[in-house]
Amino acid sequence: MTRERSFWGWGYADRFPDTEARRGMAEHARGILGVGPLEVQEPPTLDSIRMPPSRIEPPPGLSAFVTSDRKERALHTYGRAYRDLLRAFRGDFTPAPDLVAHVRTEEDILAIFEWAKTEGITVIPFGGGTSVVGGVERPPSRSDSPVVSVNLRAMDRVLDVDVMSRAARIQAGATGPRLEEQLAPHGLTLRHFPQSFELSTLGGWIVTRAGGHFATLYTHIDDLVESVRMLTPRGVWESRRLPASGAGPSPDRLVLGSEGILGIVTEAWVRLQSRPRYRESATFHFASFESAVAAVRELSQSGLHPSNCRLLDAQEARINMVTGDGSSVLIVAFESADHPLGAWLDRAMEIASSHGGTCPRGPQRRTSGDRSADATADAWKSAFVDAPYLQSALVSLGVIADTFETACTWDRFDALHRAVREAVIGTARSWGASCSVSCRFTHVYPDGPAPYYTFVTVPPSPGGELEAWAKLKCAASDALIEHGATITHHHAVGRTHRPHYDRERPEPFAAALRAIKRELDPTAMLNPGVLIDP
Amino acid sequence: MTRERSFWGWGYADRFPDTEARRGMAEHARGILGVGPLEVQEPPTLDSIRMPPSRIEPPPGLSAFVTSDRKERALHTYGRAYRDLLRAFRGDFTPAPDLVAHVRTEEDILAIFEWAKTEGITVIPFGGGTSVVGGVERPPSRSDSPVVSVNLRAMDRVLDVDVMSRAARIQAGATGPRLEEQLAPHGLTLRHFPQSFELSTLGGWIVTRAGGHFATLYTHIDDLVESVRMLTPRGVWESRRLPASGAGPSPDRLVLGSEGILGIVTEAWVRLQSRPRYRESATFHFASFESAVAAVRELSQSGLHPSNCRLLDAQEARINMVTGDGSSVLIVAFESADHPLGAWLDRAMEIASSHGGTCPRGPQRRTSGDRSADATADAWKSAFVDAPYLQSALVSLGVIADTFETACTWDRFDALHRAVREAVIGTARSWGASCSVSCRFTHVYPDGPAPYYTFVTVPPSPGGELEAWAKLKCAASDALIEHGATITHHHAVGRTHRPHYDRERPEPFAAALRAIKRELDPTAMLNPGVLIDP
Repeated sequence: MTRERSFWGWGYADRFPDTEARRGMAEHARGILGVGPLEVQEPPTLDSIRMPPSRIEPPPGLSAFVTSDRKERALHTYGRAYRDLLRAFRGDFTPAPDLVAHVRTEEDILAIFEWAKTEGITVIPFGGGTSVVGGVERPPSRSDSPVVSVNLRAMDRVLDVDVMSRAARIQAGATGPRLEEQLAPHGLTLRHFPQSFELSTLGGWIVTRAGGHFATLYTHIDDLVESVRMLTPRGVWESRRLPASGAGPSPDRLVLGSEGILGIVTEAWVRLQSRPRYRESATFHFASFESAVAAVRELSQSGLHPSNCRLLDAQEARINMVTGDGSSVLIVAFESADHPLGAWLDRAMEIASSHGGTCPRGPQRRTSGDRSADATADAWKSAFVDAPYLQSALVSLGVIADTFETACTWDRFDALHRAVREAVIGTARSWGASCSVSCRFTHVYPDGPAPYYTFVTVPPSPGGELEAWAKLKCAASDALIEHGATITHHHAVGRTHRPHYDRERPEPFAAALRAIKRELDPTAMLNPGVLIDP
Repeated sequence: MTRERSFWGWGYADRFPDTEARRGMAEHARGILGVGPLEVQEPPTLDSIRMPPSRIEPPPGLSAFVTSDRKERALHTYGRAYRDLLRAFRGDFTPAPDLVAHVRTEEDILAIFEWAKTEGITVIPFGGGTSVVGGVERPPSRSDSPVVSVNLRAMDRVLDVDVMSRAARIQAGATGPRLEEQLAPHGLTLRHFPQSFELSTLGGWIVTRAGGHFATLYTHIDDLVESVRMLTPRGVWESRRLPASGAGPSPDRLVLGSEGILGIVTEAWVRLQSRPRYRESATFHFASFESAVAAVRELSQSGLHPSNCRLLDAQEARINMVTGDGSSVLIVAFESADHPLGAWLDRAMEIASSHGGTCPRGPQRRTSGDRSADATADAWKSAFVDAPYLQSALVSLGVIADTFETACTWDRFDALHRAVREAVIGTARSWGASCSVSCRFTHVYPDGPAPYYTFVTVPPSPGGELEAWAKLKCAASDALIEHGATITHHHAVGRTHRPHYDRERPEPFAAALRAIKRELDPTAMLNPGVLIDP
């Protein structure tokens, strides 16, 4: 019934390619990177991994939902960053939590808080476990103290649907597919599609400010939250359901992005949409990346609000098998439940062609039920969802493959883009490796894009992946911060981005966050080390 | 050169109608309210008002910009709420600040902080002074201690314009007209038009989460702020210019709505728009308010994003002289710098007529430079801007005339609307007065409207205005809170809304705000009593 999750890699265990398939991938990667043969290594088994025994037992009252099962502890040791995959692949489960709590109700969570308070236990909230920034692992500062990972996924129901206001009250542990399947009978959809959609949870999206792949207008989950309910060690934080308010600073905006340091989100009212009936899209090819960027800028400032406005540079288009002819590719799509979108797409096509974009396949128009596809857009979509699975496979070949993303104002993009590429390529070159760096825009705003970078390279020598990755990541992050960009548009801060986040955020704001933390979580039980030091 | 502000009433002194004109108004109001003759009273003079002497002298270093001038102190005693107008009209300037500082630079502000810290002085930031919630007056808790009102209006320059990203860095003291006149040469506009546009300031808008009269999509100033710079007693809080970020909770969102309790905003980068070239609008009449509400709901969920979507109920349409035939009137307008809007307005007209709306004058289409007008929309606009001037005149007749506003989800609107009307009308009826209560929607969202109410009545007997108003205001506020609405969509909390705000916001959020306040303003010098008690 329940499909098995990989205890070390991305997503479902059955998606990890077999040895034969990975041999083919190794050949392919070798061609791209111009390196010698890559060793196809086998993943760890539950028996082979290294994990210290649990330091604590659950009290009898909690044993119904708290476990020290080895596989459960393995599944909750890491998120799914490159660094996590690598450490897990090597069998290092040293930071495993001592216990895993599968909470079913708010009472279960309050019981954990009570117990944690008296016993000095560290509590790490856990949704889909897809953090790519070290957001759900035992912090080094608590290496010897007991840690409980609190998994919310049993709390996955849609509790209320308000069809008139198009909103629903949903439990925080619901994954994308789980909540969409419960909304579908009402003709409504949340339409929040982060890359981790199949695994990650509403609560996780809220505390990490997740970005959906609807690329303009409503991008972050922030825009979709109507109210939120969070349990803190000092009481219930529940905001009022409101379409908007001007009553003081928004309480919800302090929960959004709080990464589990202030409490555990248990449910939220979210804004829904009617299921779209009209769809129009077009894919444009541009000979130069610069022209494509100019077209995207004009589109982002046009007020047309496309549901998709993705730019892939030539390398990105090649990797994702969209086109191999060296063009940059721009996918523009409109969706509506209310009206046909001819006028919208026509104007978008005018803008794209005024910047030299061509549209070889012409506009694609679909109405509800029409399953004919825009092949380019669909090739990209499937590559998008599969990408994290590919990354896990590459780890087993000793290839370093990772992504990072940001946002900046338009005036800063050119210099940022050059600096980022030079930083990453130059770092790999320092040990003689070539490095593929590709860029796409996942989201665009009137005042700037959200560029997303993928890099693939090899370490100086097998086994040196972690150190090499750390150098690449730091070089890239330095370039972002030095060029006025953000350390993350939608991957959150966690523990990985801390040093650079600390350079980005206003110092009095950090002081404010620490003050709130002391107030609401005086024993500092909750997810210490992300965002701030307690 | 500088047009004189009224020291007691709304806006410019020359806009207060003479005795003759007010006699006519008294006759008109008498007809509507069915009361006996109203006494036309004369406004106070600067010599007649009661104001205690200043408790402090500025230190020599600050005397260049700090004054104890009587008129300056009078101008900074109150905001411009009904209650303020009434107290000022009666000559009660007891809570006047002891000094007024017209700061010219950040150094001036820091010097005030330093002085205030050592001398135990209360500092009240002051922009346009148009608060309608008691946001800029001496709090009762500081009735005997020295108070300095810090006026930011000398800091009114546009410092930087980034045309590519359509953004500008603007000083906090710039009023609407001041910042627009500096942006115009760049072909850009902020297009944030609160009712107080001609007087209020960017910094005031930010700390009160002001609502512009563009009615959907970008409504609050929140949406237009790219970054903000605030001086706190513990250092500079400056966020990075970013189109979007997912790095922790948004620092800007804690400044937005902070009402001067954490620091003084000195400048912000704001998002601009190109000046619109295309405009389409239509005015619909509905026989029933309920049908009009249903049309607005469908429009708000259509994804058409009109720039204006104002609903006036029959009484509101009558008062604003839009129509007197008992119809509810819906004004829908679209604007764009990029494309003609025929398809947008056509679909809006389909929606309106499917709910029984008629459009007697047909759609109005204007392109840049075309000054032909939609007469209905323009009648409404001019009434909108003049309304606060009218209120000051009504105060001089002993008429109680005030507004309050809110937002709620669609499913709650009907019950809320009934309850609000009954509460206000029933309260006036308790002393035998009739009461006009009208409603418009100033803003609409996919999940609910922002209803705005105007009430006009008379007190039990002349002189009883303040007590009668307090009963009406409390009855209305109780109804809002009890029916799941917010105490304010865009008028802020200040001191007037405190008791009801306290029932609305999550208690742990208030604890968080208090913790931040202690951290950033340890001597509690800044605007005590709004939002929280120190």
